Amino acid sequence: MSSAQEFQQAPHKLLVIPGPIEVDNRILYANASPSVSHVSPAFISIFGDCLRMLRTILYAEKTGQPFMIAGSGTLGWDQTAANLVEPGEEVVVLNHGYFGDSFAECLEAYGAKVTVLKAPIGGIVDENELVKVLKEKKVKLVTITHVDTSTGVLSPVERYCELIHKTSPDTLIAIDAVCAAGSEEIRFDDWGLDVVVTAPQKGLGVPPGLSLVMASKKALGVLEKRKAPVTAYYASWRRWLPIMQAYEAGQPKYFATPPVQLVNALHVGLKQVLEDKPSLEERFKVHKQVSNYVKDELEKMGCGFVPLDRANSANGMTAARYPKGITAADVLGPLAERDIVVAGGLHKEIASEYFRVGHMGVTAVDQQRGDIEKILKNVKEVLDIARAKQA
Amino acid sequence: MSSAQEFQQAPHKLLVIPGPIEVDNRILYANASPSVSHVSPAFISIFGDCLRMLRTILYAEKTGQPFMIAGSGTLGWDQTAANLVEPGEEVVVLNHGYFGDSFAECLEAYGAKVTVLKAPIGGIVDENELVKVLKEKKVKLVTITHVDTSTGVLSPVERYCELIHKTSPDTLIAIDAVCAAGSEEIRFDDWGLDVVVTAPQKGLGVPPGLSLVMASKKALGVLEKRKAPVTAYYASWRRWLPIMQAYEAGQPKYFATPPVQLVNALHVGLKQVLEDKPSLEERFKVHKQVSNYVKDELEKMGCGFVPLDRANSANGMTAARYPKGITAADVLGPLAERDIVVAGGLHKEIASEYFRVGHMGVTAVDQQRGDIEKILKNVKEVLDIARAKQA
Repeated sequence: MSSAQEFQQAPHKLLVIPGPIEVDNRILYANASPSVSHVSPAFISIFGDCLRMLRTILYAEKTGQPFMIAGSGTLGWDQTAANLVEPGEEVVVLNHGYFGDSFAECLEAYGAKVTVLKAPIGGIVDENELVKVLKEKKVKLVTITHVDTSTGVLSPVERYCELIHKTSPDTLIAIDAVCAAGSEEIRFDDWGLDVVVTAPQKGLGVPPGLSLVMASKKALGVLEKRKAPVTAYYASWRRWLPIMQAYEAGQPKYFATPPVQLVNALHVGLKQVLEDKPSLEERFKVHKQVSNYVKDELEKMGCGFVPLDRANSANGMTAARYPKGITAADVLGPLAERDIVVAGGLHKEIASEYFRVGHMGVTAVDQQRGDIEKILKNVKEVLDIARAKQA
Repeated sequence: MSSAQEFQQAPHKLLVIPGPIEVDNRILYANASPSVSHVSPAFISIFGDCLRMLRTILYAEKTGQPFMIAGSGTLGWDQTAANLVEPGEEVVVLNHGYFGDSFAECLEAYGAKVTVLKAPIGGIVDENELVKVLKEKKVKLVTITHVDTSTGVLSPVERYCELIHKTSPDTLIAIDAVCAAGSEEIRFDDWGLDVVVTAPQKGLGVPPGLSLVMASKKALGVLEKRKAPVTAYYASWRRWLPIMQAYEAGQPKYFATPPVQLVNALHVGLKQVLEDKPSLEERFKVHKQVSNYVKDELEKMGCGFVPLDRANSANGMTAARYPKGITAADVLGPLAERDIVVAGGLHKEIASEYFRVGHMGVTAVDQQRGDIEKILKNVKEVLDIARAKQA
């Protein structure tokens, strides 16, 4: 017989890639909850709670309509493109790496005319360029990858929002916060965001399998007034909005079967984010402190960084350049042999030059686990061994 | 400390709706597996195994290309519509209830010109009507709901396939087998199917959260030659095909993060289907035997059935009409109080006249559980109590 208190996940290598991340025992136990009807009162209440907690975590109490749909984070891009952009409309993509490229491809699939503003590798898009394009064209939507995990660059979302609202008030703003929600502060209402696309498996510390999206009233108004039909079914907010509203009101309604166990797991995970620690603000502070500590220590070991500047570096992960003379083979395999899984490079132009470490969720917040010290100690040891071999 | 052997799910009401269904302890334990990288060799091997086992279960070894994507079963409709139908092309939907209506709506969202052949409630579409429309129009695709859970009708898929191949050899055939895979025999290669859309939470006995699709070589060839762009990203097979091929070949490749834990759970579930019982053929026989037994016993209690005829009745569920004088209130609530959850009616024209019982997966196959006897005993008791009150 197992219970939530007794349950311990199986022994495994420490997973510290930029997501999926380590998952707490209580969350995994909820992911093994017995089958329950997706329209039962108990499940409806849990589903509704998740929607409300997402609103709280994203500071979206005033204008946010959450959507929680079975899928990967990527499905959030489809939701954004399918619902908000009509064929031929102009969209600007602020591109800080791999995930900016992909978001642009998704928008184009739905007929958007996409202008990509591409930052230099590790840098951020120049705000003057953004203002210029907003003045030249009638831009329906700007998309921003909050943290591009391929480069570890943190976008100055608040600043971009100010500029967009000032220069082109009708333009909608969507952020890809898959690797930001739960580890970076996102002020949906205050920043005037229209869409936040995220997923459970990064800063929220829950297994993958849900597309979590927050849409503004303004965005839903734009959807209501659009002329072209929405050429999607599963990604159509018109299909899902009545479901989300019903679940939040405690009423059953069916469109497609939700991933019942995973919603239970998310429920436990979001409660941990909101209730187990002193405050949400504190959570973001802890992520910053841990991030600075990891980066300082890696720097002492001779690593550089892909982001050109600390202010625009993610707080939930680090994209660290190998010290001179060190290669991926010196680090990735040897760490895995020590039961620590970090990720290699993803940005194709520099993939062999850097590695990526996740320090989000329990790994950052639950310091009793000792994950951070374990990572740093072992990175140092494998670097020392590699250097000794060279000498 | 928990282990696969020790793990016991929490006590709960017996869930015998037409899906999600009861999930075996070993499968739930796999759904609580620790985080692992979605591109690690161990996970790639599990993912590849799942694809291979899906092919086996659907008898699709010769022509089937499996897709396994985070989402609900509904996403399979989008995949079918988005990839195979160009705007303005003719599609025929064989409609046996609620899920036929919805598949038609999905096809229309992608621009298909849909002709719905609607069966009388509980009946099946007349094959002459099907042949007639295939002769009148150039039909790109016929869709068939294998089991429509709103009516419990089982479509004669093999027979429809014969007629379609004979009358209009170029026409593609897609079946919605969400409530059929694992509980009804599906002969992908032999019947000449082009798409099977399914999901884990019904006859396969795994938690919901995956869209499982099998596509034929012919279907992929049609996709290759299509002229109009695919107006979808997450539902686009062009994005996913290289991923599925890579995983099956044991190679890492990334498009969107798969639901790692749920894929582990599916792996255990599919192995149970293929290895724990004498044979797959035996599994379908057991489902038939159990179905006949449940239907015979319900008939003895005075119940009728929504399907007009036993031959076209699902083997994994029963849509039973209340005996004369009995209403939903006499059955659904009283059964729930006895910790048995069945479902009410779903077909809007007759919703109050019937209830639905699932007898798929472990409930049918693992007879040591005693689920079937428990259901029948309690249905009989609540009906007797209701009758006693009337007398």
